[in-house]
Amino acid sequence: MSLPEIRTLHSCHAHFGWDSALAPVMTVTPGERVTIACRDAGDGQVDAAATHELMARLDPHRANPLTGPIHVDGAKPGDALVITIEEFAPSGFGWTGLIPGFGLLADQFPEPRLHLWNYDVSGSRPLAFNGIAEIPLAPFIGTIGTAPAAPGPHSVIPPRRVGGNMDIRDMRAGTVLWLPVEVEGALLSVGDTHAAQGDGEVCGTAIESAMDVSLKVDLLPGGAPRFPRYQTSGPRPGALERDGVVATTGIGPDLMAACRDAVSGMIDHLSRSMPAEDAYMLCSVAADLRVSEIVDAPNWVVSCAIPRVLFVDRASV
Amino acid sequence: MSLPEIRTLHSCHAHFGWDSALAPVMTVTPGERVTIACRDAGDGQVDAAATHELMARLDPHRANPLTGPIHVDGAKPGDALVITIEEFAPSGFGWTGLIPGFGLLADQFPEPRLHLWNYDVSGSRPLAFNGIAEIPLAPFIGTIGTAPAAPGPHSVIPPRRVGGNMDIRDMRAGTVLWLPVEVEGALLSVGDTHAAQGDGEVCGTAIESAMDVSLKVDLLPGGAPRFPRYQTSGPRPGALERDGVVATTGIGPDLMAACRDAVSGMIDHLSRSMPAEDAYMLCSVAADLRVSEIVDAPNWVVSCAIPRVLFVDRASV
Repeated sequence: MSLPEIRTLHSCHAHFGWDSALAPVMTVTPGERVTIACRDAGDGQVDAAATHELMARLDPHRANPLTGPIHVDGAKPGDALVITIEEFAPSGFGWTGLIPGFGLLADQFPEPRLHLWNYDVSGSRPLAFNGIAEIPLAPFIGTIGTAPAAPGPHSVIPPRRVGGNMDIRDMRAGTVLWLPVEVEGALLSVGDTHAAQGDGEVCGTAIESAMDVSLKVDLLPGGAPRFPRYQTSGPRPGALERDGVVATTGIGPDLMAACRDAVSGMIDHLSRSMPAEDAYMLCSVAADLRVSEIVDAPNWVVSCAIPRVLFVDRASV
Repeated sequence: MSLPEIRTLHSCHAHFGWDSALAPVMTVTPGERVTIACRDAGDGQVDAAATHELMARLDPHRANPLTGPIHVDGAKPGDALVITIEEFAPSGFGWTGLIPGFGLLADQFPEPRLHLWNYDVSGSRPLAFNGIAEIPLAPFIGTIGTAPAAPGPHSVIPPRRVGGNMDIRDMRAGTVLWLPVEVEGALLSVGDTHAAQGDGEVCGTAIESAMDVSLKVDLLPGGAPRFPRYQTSGPRPGALERDGVVATTGIGPDLMAACRDAVSGMIDHLSRSMPAEDAYMLCSVAADLRVSEIVDAPNWVVSCAIPRVLFVDRASV
């Protein structure tokens, strides 16, 4: 038995925003595998010559291009697409930016800032960050979704019931994703690939990086979950917790404020040994936001946890 | 050199609620180690003969007894207590309950429900749950804090800036905790020990279990963090992610609603093979609430993730 041929969908087939009226650029049969070439979330505006200032004048109309849409034969509203993420071919170039007006602490970080990453695509060497930290390569899909039934166009930024810009860092090789279908043919699109990110993506960007993604598309008739569901096949990459974490907390009656306090606390803590802007970007690519408790009314606890093993100078954290 | 003698604070020295006017029951010198005997969060009301119905008539005035308060010599407002959690001696008996009116989904689970756990204190065998799942022993301190400066008494249920009922499952052996001090002598109290819990403690109870806790108390003058900070020394116990997780999501503009949707989705998913009440309790003791993204305005993504390795019948999830 030989594996079926894998077709490739090139990144010239990109669209901006979600719209069920978009014409499909490919049709697949359930069970078929496809390789999808994804542009980065900046649509190529950020290159090796880019400077901090570019983050203040990115063209918002080119944000988060998606490759697709892909028509899935036989998919109907109420079905689930069952997507098995198989493999990534990362480009080796990425960026993380502070975009004025965007991000969890946008009010505290009004200035544009950019970090460029040139990385080993094999993953055998981590991604170096300003001599401060080293981030293991952990590629995943930031945006994967089907077209919403409501007439479009819809902004690509917010995720929805049908997925989209979910930025769940477990959308990695080996993961299976169940996505609700709301329109005939499902109209699957994929983009916004990331080389690494923490839970939360707190500064608004991860390690944004163009990649090819190989996945298998299947169909579960009538199986649409209320919201996307997924299953991973093993531990998160990098054995990051082997030396534990440093964590800050936010405590109070509002989860958003608790998240902001936890991240602000981590930035304060890390800023003893690095610029605050670097600390914020580092949180975005490597720290996890956890809801530690959500039942001890009226106050909830959120933890922002960053692995100690990432730091070149462990004593600095 | 010999280790200093460890004094023991017995659980007869318990109090209910926080109050800076409470008289200390022990005084420690910074650097001293102490073993603290903690009652369970039900103050012994739940024993081996307890039935579901008890959860509807627990005496709220006996909720969450704390052992203490401990006066720390020299501690002043603005300092941090630096607490190194060293060791647990679990009792081998625990309980998890659905208490009417309490918990993240209290509206969906109005009936009382109780599960009793008799477990191997060595941790070499996991805690069996109704033939469905097996939970590794992962003891931690649910409530640890100093007295708030504001005149008391204050309810023990909500955590605060000075800690308290934080229910952070990383308060385990090897963890160091920095706690703000607001009153002379700090007035440290400890209780609400748990044999295991997921991030969120979604049903309102973990595996509630009396334990002795050994810790070292130190002082960092002027070092009070804005909120508690902590550092773990290694991975979370149990290698739980070795076979990956199953995860459900909640997506929307309100983090609380997204948390509720994610947990409801997991209960729906698990209820195909177990009673919904069991699924809810299982989420509380073993599933983690993660903020997957909090920047793609106006919609945030929360994931509820449960390790696959816990399930006796892996195919059932």
